[in-house]
Amino acid sequence: MRIDSVDFFYLAMPEITMDADGSQDALLVRVQADGVVGWGECEASPLTSIAAFVTPPSHGACLGVADSVIGERLDGPDDIRRIAAAVTRNSMDLLQAPHTFSGIEIALWDLLGVARQEPVWRLLGQTLSLPKTPYASVLFGDDPQTTLERGRSLVARGFRAVKFGWGPFGTGTVEADADQIMAAREGIGPEAALLVDAGQIWDTDVAAAAQRLPALDDASVTWLEEPFHAHAISAYADLARYGARVGLAGGEGAHNVHMAMNLMSYGAIRFIQTDTGRIGGIGSARDVADAARARDIVYVNHTFTSHLALSASLQSFASDVDSTICEYPAEPRALALAITENHLDLDDNGQIAAPDAPGLGMSVDTAALGDYLRDVRIEVDGTEIFRSSPLPVSTTTGATT
Amino acid sequence: MRIDSVDFFYLAMPEITMDADGSQDALLVRVQADGVVGWGECEASPLTSIAAFVTPPSHGACLGVADSVIGERLDGPDDIRRIAAAVTRNSMDLLQAPHTFSGIEIALWDLLGVARQEPVWRLLGQTLSLPKTPYASVLFGDDPQTTLERGRSLVARGFRAVKFGWGPFGTGTVEADADQIMAAREGIGPEAALLVDAGQIWDTDVAAAAQRLPALDDASVTWLEEPFHAHAISAYADLARYGARVGLAGGEGAHNVHMAMNLMSYGAIRFIQTDTGRIGGIGSARDVADAARARDIVYVNHTFTSHLALSASLQSFASDVDSTICEYPAEPRALALAITENHLDLDDNGQIAAPDAPGLGMSVDTAALGDYLRDVRIEVDGTEIFRSSPLPVSTTTGATT
Repeated sequence: MRIDSVDFFYLAMPEITMDADGSQDALLVRVQADGVVGWGECEASPLTSIAAFVTPPSHGACLGVADSVIGERLDGPDDIRRIAAAVTRNSMDLLQAPHTFSGIEIALWDLLGVARQEPVWRLLGQTLSLPKTPYASVLFGDDPQTTLERGRSLVARGFRAVKFGWGPFGTGTVEADADQIMAAREGIGPEAALLVDAGQIWDTDVAAAAQRLPALDDASVTWLEEPFHAHAISAYADLARYGARVGLAGGEGAHNVHMAMNLMSYGAIRFIQTDTGRIGGIGSARDVADAARARDIVYVNHTFTSHLALSASLQSFASDVDSTICEYPAEPRALALAITENHLDLDDNGQIAAPDAPGLGMSVDTAALGDYLRDVRIEVDGTEIFRSSPLPVSTTTGATT
Repeated sequence: MRIDSVDFFYLAMPEITMDADGSQDALLVRVQADGVVGWGECEASPLTSIAAFVTPPSHGACLGVADSVIGERLDGPDDIRRIAAAVTRNSMDLLQAPHTFSGIEIALWDLLGVARQEPVWRLLGQTLSLPKTPYASVLFGDDPQTTLERGRSLVARGFRAVKFGWGPFGTGTVEADADQIMAAREGIGPEAALLVDAGQIWDTDVAAAAQRLPALDDASVTWLEEPFHAHAISAYADLARYGARVGLAGGEGAHNVHMAMNLMSYGAIRFIQTDTGRIGGIGSARDVADAARARDIVYVNHTFTSHLALSASLQSFASDVDSTICEYPAEPRALALAITENHLDLDDNGQIAAPDAPGLGMSVDTAALGDYLRDVRIEVDGTEIFRSSPLPVSTTTGATT
């Protein structure tokens, strides 16, 4: 096959709030090759990512992403790797490029899986898609009582693990954070796993993070996620030296495999989390998952948006027996749920798995998305270099056009 | 003062070649506050960087850069630090943001220096602007003879240090690279310092890089720059273990201070190079220079474009006695030279220094740039969110409008 076209659909809720809730907009990607269609999603600023695709070149190591993708051969997984390497090289100086390419790469796998009638996880060499225990990923409430009630309702929905993050956490006193943590534990009960996401709130302030460790241990929190700036590796290592029982987790900010490797090599983390929609796609996430297994670090997906993104994120560690939990967007905005017709609902055991279906196994519901579509037009020197395409009528992932 | 406006001027040569020559286009930034003007430059994809400035928000940690800049107070250096921290936090998930902000930050320093009639290096707490020995930074020739002649002509122009990079280097055999290195040495003679820039050609292949070490040592090369992917820290450390005399250099890809710190902490480099137009601006470059000094690592600027960018890059280590050399774009495209009326020409000792003049001390030559200006228009849902401004008539950096 030959890659004929890449289309971007910038979707957004009518109102964007200042919550740290990434499900308020989406950049959906459709790739077509020889009449076969694949879908992917960037977890990234939509307009900026589109610009990084269509931009005129700056020089030989700063090309728009389109220049390494359109017209390329796509006959197997090696072609996806080859295209990814070309983007890395040709767009070396275009910082946004990995975020743009991530959604394309996901769509390439989906397309290939549909063409071969194989799930992506099998194309990656795995023979099984094991069930994972999803943890409900939500924001802390503005006050402990709201957090408690949120936790209670999630357990009632069948979740056996819950992660609270962002909101007021880390912005006030040590005691206020302890109250939030205890409320979270009380809400979900003693049996469920509790995870806490600090959302980089302490930047590089190891002492501030360390003050929260006793409360995290008292509440038997499994991991403390992203206490620091995504690149502040030595701060992670310094915090780990306090010897708390709570493990450190991070990696969602990684925009290439090396960043995740560095956090594993030098940051003393116990859980590595990558977002398939940012790190360069499913192949890169797979590389990280493989490296994590070899180091006794648990690989976990980062997914806070749609079930298309969720399926993509599950593909790279579907068969990994040591990675038993996965992030699950438990309270996404309506847009995120509207993107796919089908959803990865919890089974009777409260578990989910990467679908045993061609490609990503998800049906993009283009009919439901019209109201969310934002119309983008980019012109350089009077020439239109990007104009949003209308949403296609065909609604099934991987359906031929 | 209050930041009233930020304007971007996307400039480009009529033809963009596939050479790894970043001087083929430019993103010039003008900031205005209370009638005072400052100029800066992003070393980044212009269209993508503009999009990252004006983009609608995705969520509370993925805002366009404009949202953290426009309307902010600017009364002293602490305000620049505060704005930089706000961009880091508010645009955490917008990958391109540091590239966009770098040019703005540089313009903020220029503006502040003009308002106070002080050079930026003095605003940074330095009392001296020491002369530096510029090394001519050029590409390898397509063949050794071209490289030899290029080196000869640069020494004839007064350069006492020359760096060759990219082109065919690393793409062929070990012997071909040795021939290039020897031709470079022959061209510049035995006295001049010789530096080699591999342009990330070996990605993570330590063995391939190691095969070049004997030739580099035979030619008394001072440093081997960017043998690997900008994030491949452990590959740097592994190559350093070969114990060659040639030092390792890197860091131009750093888009925040932490990335440069990680390369220094874990990569066993002897020279840290940052591009002020990418790392977040002059304040970030200054932080890296300070950290380098404390670790006995030599700080060097990365600058391959205009003399506005060159002046900006010199500010952060103007008084550093251990950093005696600086990169100097020796064969830039016409556009890069046209950006400023004045240039940092070599003095009789073959040296340059950060100007002892208000701000960056450079006069932007807007009258010369009209032919290079590219007209950009970005529309979302029928509303124009960016349109290129015409170049202003006022031509002096920091002149009041």
